[in-house]
Amino acid sequence: MESHFTKIKGGVGAPQGFLTAAISCGIKNPDATRLDLALIHSDVPCASAGTFTTNRVKAAPVKLSQAHLRKGNLRCIIANSGNANACTGVVGIRDAKAMCSGVAKALSLRTSEVGVCSTGVIGLPMPMVRIENRIPELVEKLSPRSGADVAAAIITSDTHAKEVAISFEIDGHTVKMGGCVKGAGMISPSMATMLCFITTDANLSSDCLRKCTLECVEESFNRITIDGDMSTNDTVLILANGKSGMTSIRRNSSACKIFRAALQYVMLALAKAVVRDGERVTKFVTVEVKGARTYLDAKKVAEAVSKSALVKSSWNGGDPNWGRIIHAVGYSRARIREELVDIFINEKAACLGGLQAPTPMDELRAIVAQPDFTINIHLNQGEASYTMYTSDLSPEYVDFNRSEYAYWKQARKDGLV
Amino acid sequence: MESHFTKIKGGVGAPQGFLTAAISCGIKNPDATRLDLALIHSDVPCASAGTFTTNRVKAAPVKLSQAHLRKGNLRCIIANSGNANACTGVVGIRDAKAMCSGVAKALSLRTSEVGVCSTGVIGLPMPMVRIENRIPELVEKLSPRSGADVAAAIITSDTHAKEVAISFEIDGHTVKMGGCVKGAGMISPSMATMLCFITTDANLSSDCLRKCTLECVEESFNRITIDGDMSTNDTVLILANGKSGMTSIRRNSSACKIFRAALQYVMLALAKAVVRDGERVTKFVTVEVKGARTYLDAKKVAEAVSKSALVKSSWNGGDPNWGRIIHAVGYSRARIREELVDIFINEKAACLGGLQAPTPMDELRAIVAQPDFTINIHLNQGEASYTMYTSDLSPEYVDFNRSEYAYWKQARKDGLV
Repeated sequence: MESHFTKIKGGVGAPQGFLTAAISCGIKNPDATRLDLALIHSDVPCASAGTFTTNRVKAAPVKLSQAHLRKGNLRCIIANSGNANACTGVVGIRDAKAMCSGVAKALSLRTSEVGVCSTGVIGLPMPMVRIENRIPELVEKLSPRSGADVAAAIITSDTHAKEVAISFEIDGHTVKMGGCVKGAGMISPSMATMLCFITTDANLSSDCLRKCTLECVEESFNRITIDGDMSTNDTVLILANGKSGMTSIRRNSSACKIFRAALQYVMLALAKAVVRDGERVTKFVTVEVKGARTYLDAKKVAEAVSKSALVKSSWNGGDPNWGRIIHAVGYSRARIREELVDIFINEKAACLGGLQAPTPMDELRAIVAQPDFTINIHLNQGEASYTMYTSDLSPEYVDFNRSEYAYWKQARKDGLV
Repeated sequence: MESHFTKIKGGVGAPQGFLTAAISCGIKNPDATRLDLALIHSDVPCASAGTFTTNRVKAAPVKLSQAHLRKGNLRCIIANSGNANACTGVVGIRDAKAMCSGVAKALSLRTSEVGVCSTGVIGLPMPMVRIENRIPELVEKLSPRSGADVAAAIITSDTHAKEVAISFEIDGHTVKMGGCVKGAGMISPSMATMLCFITTDANLSSDCLRKCTLECVEESFNRITIDGDMSTNDTVLILANGKSGMTSIRRNSSACKIFRAALQYVMLALAKAVVRDGERVTKFVTVEVKGARTYLDAKKVAEAVSKSALVKSSWNGGDPNWGRIIHAVGYSRARIREELVDIFINEKAACLGGLQAPTPMDELRAIVAQPDFTINIHLNQGEASYTMYTSDLSPEYVDFNRSEYAYWKQARKDGLV
């Protein structure tokens, strides 16, 4: 189905009726040279859906966006980077509300029509003095051609902005869908430290949108891992404003199938982009598990291999170390039989029946030296399969994450702590 | 009870009636400059017990030692470092058997009285040509004063040998207990990549010894983590030969309590030594969780914090980053309430009620700059507690684990692959 999606420019600003803007408030860096406050707005009401972190410690904007979604549909999203507004108690909730009500007031909306997202350092109060009085300016800047600014404004330790947009046909109507994502650290299944916003001018009910969103998140963002850490702020929000002019998509219709495939395409592209741009990542590795007794067994194996510090370290070193892979298969708690396990690296056998395969070591090393390869694990016990997307673990990742003290020093200077 | 244990010299050779030896066979390095084959032998029959990896991929020596323990009691242990004899199929089983039968023949024992352990690289055949014909020489060297050689012969990437020995009184008899351990990489709860041998001249039944061993392993080795990877070879073996002259310890007697406390003391000392000597570790961190609703909730929180790559990276940088700690508490799947969580670092409050505590940042930084500190996490929801011992994660750990290719090159030179 992918061949029917045409890549277009414009990111979240590409679909009809969506206006976007971003400004620099000095949340991410005090001299305000980087975009760090973004707004997405639909000029008509939307169907909307969201998925959120399953971490029991939830950031204030996560709690508030969840509450707003329960009340009805969103048609606006305000997001900042540099401060996660997490572990900030009642003050954090007040600040997140102020962000929403500032936008609602400037755009004459109900506060509950605004979603809010934050990403950055945990445990520091939001520098609201730098944000609140800038919201009218942010609204003023709304334009149909600044989707890329939103993608840039939400990144933190990412090395570059990540966005995608496609157009496709449903029942003779041209539909557009755009998305952007930030990732980099605290990336693990069950939602990453990650914000993802998707806009579309498709026409469908919230119910139908919610179902498609849950299914597609499960098969994209919930299948990536960088460091196995799950954030307090993970959020995917999607707005559908129906402006393509099509009639409303019914559940389980062929139109719904096309829409779902498009959403899956956009989410998977963004999820993979998150892994490729993980903190100090040098390898993109697809881990495919096949022949498991059950889906859950396949998932356990894929997750254990994708998260093993030793396996990921060996990939960083270009070492096709199948011994470490099978040891992770073994401790995954999946039902496996050592003597049945085959491991392939880009189709070349590294391990057959639990033993060293005859493939020359240098051939395997040449594959793992590449920046992108696939590990196939055949358990040979059943029909279930599961795929994950992961990265290597580099000394530079650890070095990069040794201290966030600079943030604290700045917060003290600002009188926040 | 600890005060009644007197530290003595001699390691696994300290208790009466135990003879030990170690030689260099060139398994660990081809020029045979490092001890890599060890033997522990009791001159009388023993009660014995063992615990083994729960990894479904088990090394050949693990399978064989388990089978021998099922048949009856061990009184000898042969162990090598440099090659794990894991993922080696029927050839591996044959090689492990050959190691046992070689020892049995030289000492006129049944093969099933010999336990066998291997540690090192996974997936390469054992270089038996270097081992088999050296066993008579190993037996020849048995002496009551070479416990330290065994400790040295089992280490791999450890920076130093780790052993302990104590003497204590039971019913007026002086009892001795000695132990040694190897750790360094693939260290995680549910048994580490780790070999641990304990000898004692206490007199007790195998049943009683087995019960004490299971309980003490649960409270020592199963509470440490370095990299979250569980090995294929983890083994704890304990031999008790009764030569102290005491009458046999009955289950649940006061003598049994003293013995159990001594075993717990030795195992915990060795388990902590494994963490302190973890691969490229610079910090020893005790994670104490209190006030959980259940033991399992406390355990989940302790494990999530102790294994988080982001938390461990921050410790490496001397950063008292409570935000990362509480985020791991949140994703642990334990039942916690963010607004009740207090986090202390060496008794100084870092987080109270889920929010930044008033302790000056510099005070917390001074503590985390030290090589040894304790994180206290109070969930304030119940009475259950759990403690784990963990380390930081250093860029040097990842760098160190980037490649085992040198081993493969040597194996090829030896004609093994």
